[in-house]
Amino acid sequence: MSMNVLVWSENYHEEREDPVRRRYPDGIHGAIAAGLTELLGDSARVETAVLAEPEHGLSAERLATTDVLTWWGHMAHEEVSDEAVRRVHDRVLDGMGMVVLHSGHYSKIFRSLMGTSCTVNWRQGAERELVWTVAPSHPIARDVPNPLVIDQQETYGEPFGIPAPDELVFISNFSGGEAFRSGCCYTRGNGRIFYFSPGDQNYPVFHHPDVRRVLANAVRWAALGDRPAKPLANTNTPIRW
Amino acid sequence: MSMNVLVWSENYHEEREDPVRRRYPDGIHGAIAAGLTELLGDSARVETAVLAEPEHGLSAERLATTDVLTWWGHMAHEEVSDEAVRRVHDRVLDGMGMVVLHSGHYSKIFRSLMGTSCTVNWRQGAERELVWTVAPSHPIARDVPNPLVIDQQETYGEPFGIPAPDELVFISNFSGGEAFRSGCCYTRGNGRIFYFSPGDQNYPVFHHPDVRRVLANAVRWAALGDRPAKPLANTNTPIRW
Amino acid sequence: MSMNVLVWSENYHEEREDPVRRRYPDGIHGAIAAGLTELLGDSARVETAVLAEPEHGLSAERLATTDVLTWWGHMAHEEVSDEAVRRVHDRVLDGMGMVVLHSGHYSKIFRSLMGTSCTVNWRQGAERELVWTVAPSHPIARDVPNPLVIDQQETYGEPFGIPAPDELVFISNFSGGEAFRSGCCYTRGNGRIFYFSPGDQNYPVFHHPDVRRVLANAVRWAALGDRPAKPLANTNTPIRW
Amino acid sequence: MSMNVLVWSENYHEEREDPVRRRYPDGIHGAIAAGLTELLGDSARVETAVLAEPEHGLSAERLATTDVLTWWGHMAHEEVSDEAVRRVHDRVLDGMGMVVLHSGHYSKIFRSLMGTSCTVNWRQGAERELVWTVAPSHPIARDVPNPLVIDQQETYGEPFGIPAPDELVFISNFSGGEAFRSGCCYTRGNGRIFYFSPGDQNYPVFHHPDVRRVLANAVRWAALGDRPAKPLANTNTPIRW
Repeated sequence: MSMNVLVWSENYHEEREDPVRRRYPDGIHGAIAAGLTELLGDSARVETAVLAEPEHGLSAERLATTDVLTWWGHMAHEEVSDEAVRRVHDRVLDGMGMVVLHSGHYSKIFRSLMGTSCTVNWRQGAERELVWTVAPSHPIARDVPNPLVIDQQETYGEPFGIPAPDELVFISNFSGGEAFRSGCCYTRGNGRIFYFSPGDQNYPVFHHPDVRRVLANAVRWAALGDRPAKPLANTNTPIRW
Repeated sequence: MSMNVLVWSENYHEEREDPVRRRYPDGIHGAIAAGLTELLGDSARVETAVLAEPEHGLSAERLATTDVLTWWGHMAHEEVSDEAVRRVHDRVLDGMGMVVLHSGHYSKIFRSLMGTSCTVNWRQGAERELVWTVAPSHPIARDVPNPLVIDQQETYGEPFGIPAPDELVFISNFSGGEAFRSGCCYTRGNGRIFYFSPGDQNYPVFHHPDVRRVLANAVRWAALGDRPAKPLANTNTPIRW
Repeated sequence: MSMNVLVWSENYHEEREDPVRRRYPDGIHGAIAAGLTELLGDSARVETAVLAEPEHGLSAERLATTDVLTWWGHMAHEEVSDEAVRRVHDRVLDGMGMVVLHSGHYSKIFRSLMGTSCTVNWRQGAERELVWTVAPSHPIARDVPNPLVIDQQETYGEPFGIPAPDELVFISNFSGGEAFRSGCCYTRGNGRIFYFSPGDQNYPVFHHPDVRRVLANAVRWAALGDRPAKPLANTNTPIRW
Repeated sequence: MSMNVLVWSENYHEEREDPVRRRYPDGIHGAIAAGLTELLGDSARVETAVLAEPEHGLSAERLATTDVLTWWGHMAHEEVSDEAVRRVHDRVLDGMGMVVLHSGHYSKIFRSLMGTSCTVNWRQGAERELVWTVAPSHPIARDVPNPLVIDQQETYGEPFGIPAPDELVFISNFSGGEAFRSGCCYTRGNGRIFYFSPGDQNYPVFHHPDVRRVLANAVRWAALGDRPAKPLANTNTPIRW
C-alpha cells in the first residue's frame, strides 16, 4: 500500500520569530514531513501545505486523494476558513485519517470533530515530559520507548476537554506536576483520528527521533488502506429481508 | 434534588397533519412532558418549548436554569437558528443533560455534539420494534422490560453514523430485518447525553408506558444534580506543585 | 508477515452425530481451516488441533509459536484441563491473538479472559440471522456485505454477559425477534480477542463465504505481527528520571 | 437508600509491624471504615472483615446482604481461599459493588474480574502523588480537588495490566516521573467496580480527607441501589415475538 500524506501547518511562528525559524528552518511542517519521509519510505508520498496557500492548500481535489492529513496550528486557528474546515471534516467522515498535533487541540477542525471544548490547562515552563505507554501492543506504540523522554516541552494539564478516547495509548508526566492524556485515538465516521500532544514551536520536539516514530506509526494506523469507505448517509431502505 | 426539565419539540407535524394532531393532541412535547411529570413527580419541574417561540423557547436565561433538555425534531432541523444551537451546545458542555429522541438524530445540535454525520438507514414500514437491554444494571434500564415491545415503529438501521457510545444500553430488532443501537450514552464536557431511537410522529410511541419509563430514567441519569460543573476552559496555570 | 494460525475445536458432535459429520466431514475445525487457508493464502500457515490430542494439542511449545488461535467448543467445555486454559490465557496476555466462535462464549478460556458469566439467551429455531455492520471501516468488516445473511442459525439473545466490548463491529437481527452483539473486539494484556457468534454444529455456517471472510479478517486483525510484546509483570523500578 | 458496606482488609502489616500499627491503630480497614462512616452518615451501615476470620469474614450469607465491598490486600493475596474469591466474584456479577484499593490490584479477586495480569511498575520512594481528575463531572470526582495532593505515596507506573477502563476518572503524576491510571471504573455483570491506586500501609493515605471523599463517592457510585439485578444465566428461550 502506498499512501498520500499531507502535512499541514499554519507556518505563523516560523515567518515571524527568528528562534522558531532557526529551530525549524523548513517550517514545523518541513520537520514533520522529513521525519515521515524517512520512516515511511516508499510506502508514502509526503507533501506539505500551509495556511497562506490558496484554499489553505486544502482544495477538495487535493483532499480527495489524501489518505492521512496531519495538522499543526496555534496562533491562526480562526484564520482557517469555515469552508476548509467543512471539507476536511467531510473527508475524515468519508475515511481520511487525521493526526492532530499539540496546540492543534484547539483548532476548528479538531473541535468540530470532537464536539467539545478541547480546552487544556497549560504553561510555558520548559519542563521535562515523560510520555508513558498504557497500551503496549497498540500499533502506535510500536518501537516507542517507555517512557519517551522529552527534555523540554510546554506543559499541558487535565482536565482536557475531549470525549473519552476510543483508545488511550499514552499518558504524560510533566516535571512541574501535571499529568495528561497525551495520545488519544478516535474513529469518526469512516475516519481514524489520533491526537498527540508533544510538539511545540519553542522546542525542537519534531526533530526528536522517538516523536517521529510515534508520528509515523500514527499515520500508518490512521490510513484507511484497503478497507471500504462507503460514505455514511441517510438512506431510505426497502424491506428486503 | 428537584430539577428543571425542558421538553423541546419542533411542533411541525402536529400543526399541519390531522392524524398526528389526533395522536398527540397536546403535541409530541405535551405527551413527553405528561409522561415525565407522572413518573418524576415532585423531583422535577417539567416545562415545554417549541420552535415557533421567540428564540425557539431556548433563551440563555432559560437554558441557564435547565437541568435536562429533551429534543424532538424532524422536518424543521434547518430552521433552528445557529445561535440557539450554540447556546444549547455550550450549556451541555457546562453540565446540562440532554435526551435526544428519534429523528432528533439528524438535528443540528446532535450532529454538532457528536461531530459525525448521525445518519441512519430508515423506512416507514409500521414494523414491530423489540428494544433489548444489553446493560441490565444501567440506571436507564431500571424497570424496563426485556424486550420492550413497540407494535409499530419507523424502522432505523445500521450503520448509524455516530461515535461509539460511551455506554450502549439498548439494541433493537425490527420485524423487517434491521438491528439498531437504539439507546446510547455519551458524556461531552460536563454534560450527559442519551440518544433513544423509538418515537415517531406516525405512531403513539410517546404514550407507551415502557417508553415513558425509559425517558424518565434517562432524564434522571442525565441530570448533573449535586456534582460539580466547573466550566472547561483553556487556562494558563502556574507551577504550584 | 507470515503467521501461524491454530484452529482448535472440541470435535465432539462430529464424532457422535451423523448429520454433523455429513455437514462437516473434516470437522468444524477442518471447515474453518479450509476457509482461512483459502483466504489468507501465503500469509498464514494454518493448522488444526482437537480436544482428544495430548494436552488438547495446546502444548506450551505449540502455543509459543502460534500467532492466532481460533476456538470452537460446545459440549465439552469442562473437559478442557485447567492447565491448558492457563497456558492459553497466559499466551493471550503475552500477545497471541484469539478468535472465539459461537458456543465458545461459554468456554473456560473465554470466561476467564472476560471475567464475567458470558451467558446468553438461546434457542434452536433455525431462524434467519442478519449480521449488521456498525463499524463500517473496521478491518474486520472489510468486504463483508451489510447485512451478512445467514439463512438458518441458532438464535442468541441479550443480555450477553460480557464486558462492554472495546470495539463493537457487528450486531445481529434474528427472525424470531432477538438482537445480539455478534462481533466484539477486546484487548487483554498484549493480546487481541474477537468474539463472533455465528457458527453452529447444526447449520453449515462455516462454509458460508461471508462468514469465512469475517474469520480471515479477524485472524489478520488479531495477529500481533511486528508490534512489540514485552510481557506485563510486576516490576520494581528505580527512579531514573 | 440505606446500604450495607463491608470494608475488607488482610490485616497483615498491622499485626506484624509497629510503624503500621501506630499509623493505623484500628487497622487499615478501621481507617477506611471510619472515613466512610463519617461521610456516608445514615445512608450506610459500615462493617469490617479481615482475612483471619472464619471464611475470611466473607460468608455467602454476609455477601448476600452486602451492597458494596471494599478490598485492601498486599502480602497475603494467596492466602485468600479460592472459594471465597468465587463467592465474591459471583456476587459482583449479581450486582454487588466493589472498590479495590492500591495493592489490591494484584488480589485474586481483582485479577479474576479483570481477566488480565493487573501488574504494575512500582517503587517505595516516598514520592509526592498528584491525582488529576480527567472526568470532572463524574460522580466519583464530586468535591475532589484537582489535583488531589498526597505528600508521600508508593509509586505505581504504567503499563498497568488492566483492560481499558469503561470510564477513566483519575490519572496520577508522581514526583519521580511516573504517570498512572489511578481511578478506573468497570461494569462486570450487574456489578460496578472502581479501582483506586492511592493508599499504602507505609503512608497515612487513608486518613487523608480527600482520599476519604473519593472512597465515599466510589461506594455510592458502586451501589446498585434500586436498580434491577436479575442474574445473568444461559437461558433457553422460546420464540415469543
